[in-house]
Amino acid sequence: MTEKLRLHYAPDNASLVIRLVLEEMGLPYETVLVDRSVREQDSTAYRTLNPNGLIPVLETPQGPIFETAAILLWLADTYGMMAPAADHPDRGAFLKWLFFASNTLHADLRILFYAETYIDPGNAEALRAGIRPRLRRHLHLLDSQAAAAPGWLCPDHPSVLTYYLACMMRWMALYPAGSDRGWFQLPDTPYLQRLLNALETRDATRAAIAAEGLGATPFTSPTHPTPPQGSAT
Amino acid sequence: MTEKLRLHYAPDNASLVIRLVLEEMGLPYETVLVDRSVREQDSTAYRTLNPNGLIPVLETPQGPIFETAAILLWLADTYGMMAPAADHPDRGAFLKWLFFASNTLHADLRILFYAETYIDPGNAEALRAGIRPRLRRHLHLLDSQAAAAPGWLCPDHPSVLTYYLACMMRWMALYPAGSDRGWFQLPDTPYLQRLLNALETRDATRAAIAAEGLGATPFTSPTHPTPPQGSAT
Repeated sequence: MTEKLRLHYAPDNASLVIRLVLEEMGLPYETVLVDRSVREQDSTAYRTLNPNGLIPVLETPQGPIFETAAILLWLADTYGMMAPAADHPDRGAFLKWLFFASNTLHADLRILFYAETYIDPGNAEALRAGIRPRLRRHLHLLDSQAAAAPGWLCPDHPSVLTYYLACMMRWMALYPAGSDRGWFQLPDTPYLQRLLNALETRDATRAAIAAEGLGATPFTSPTHPTPPQGSAT
Repeated sequence: MTEKLRLHYAPDNASLVIRLVLEEMGLPYETVLVDRSVREQDSTAYRTLNPNGLIPVLETPQGPIFETAAILLWLADTYGMMAPAADHPDRGAFLKWLFFASNTLHADLRILFYAETYIDPGNAEALRAGIRPRLRRHLHLLDSQAAAAPGWLCPDHPSVLTYYLACMMRWMALYPAGSDRGWFQLPDTPYLQRLLNALETRDATRAAIAAEGLGATPFTSPTHPTPPQGSAT
């Protein structure tokens, strides 16, 4: 059990969302690199922190927390920042989109990236072909909903959901390497494009760029990372 | 905007989780049947409540909330029941398993049930074949974790997570109709089996059985529903 916040990360993995939010909140934290090149996420030590072997884990005074959105909500509620409090009238609306982001957008993205863990490898490309139009629909829905009622997806005041969505859109533009990515065009979702533009001016984004080698425009025109240490895959 | 809680449901749909929790909490609520036999979930009126057209929606004084787990968390926090409060030392552990249930277990279950919305119909059975061992792994993980540290999956005090998990296990035993379901054997996860057994003695479960025609043992030995009104599919 740690008294400090300690983020187990790999460059440009889902841990990036947590790093950005920790930076935006101005919280002190340590990082521990999970070396994916030797599959350290499968080590006994890491599996003790997260039995699923997924990145990130955030060690907290309450013990290790995993699941990106669970960490986001825990941080927001514990430190009272970047999300509506439990008694705020926007709480319900925030929660429904946070869970949508986690169990629909992120869940579908995982299928796109790791199709071979859902179906036999010979059918993986057929599965990816089915997932891409779903992802496009999810993004269009979020774009139209947020444009009509920005709520906690507002360019001026990023919430934990804003950073979560921005990172997922970054990954859609980049991964999986070698696969068709013409399906994803940021201008198709102009409200979300504005959100991502606004995030790139923030100190939190600059800190993450430096720490993980993300390039100057990590959300609106991302390039493959050149991290100072570790490996994205 | 309603001052009362109003649950839009279809029998044996994900709305069942919310009904059980509303009953367990002893909260007054109304129900509105969504008639799936005429695809009422695609009507303009319903899409205004949930643009995704998914069931359930809970209308609340904060407006309509969708996403099963978002509703569960909102109910638990708003009424202070069936989950650790935001400042409780178990909060982080609870959130990580709630999000896991939503974005991994439930997300995979959705693929099993609606494989044709993820891949061309000719490959749907190949996708189902890939999903079943994943679901087995998730259940075994939950079983071993909860047996070692029950936390908010404890037979004596059901949490919102307990009912969520129990309903998903019910659906694994029943759906999709006509598909192989020999892969799911409740005794393979003995701790979870105990949980489900304990739930069947509760008044909340009896109320849901009566309302949705679920039979005497809806979790441990489920049968197809014979609802007094509406259709499960």
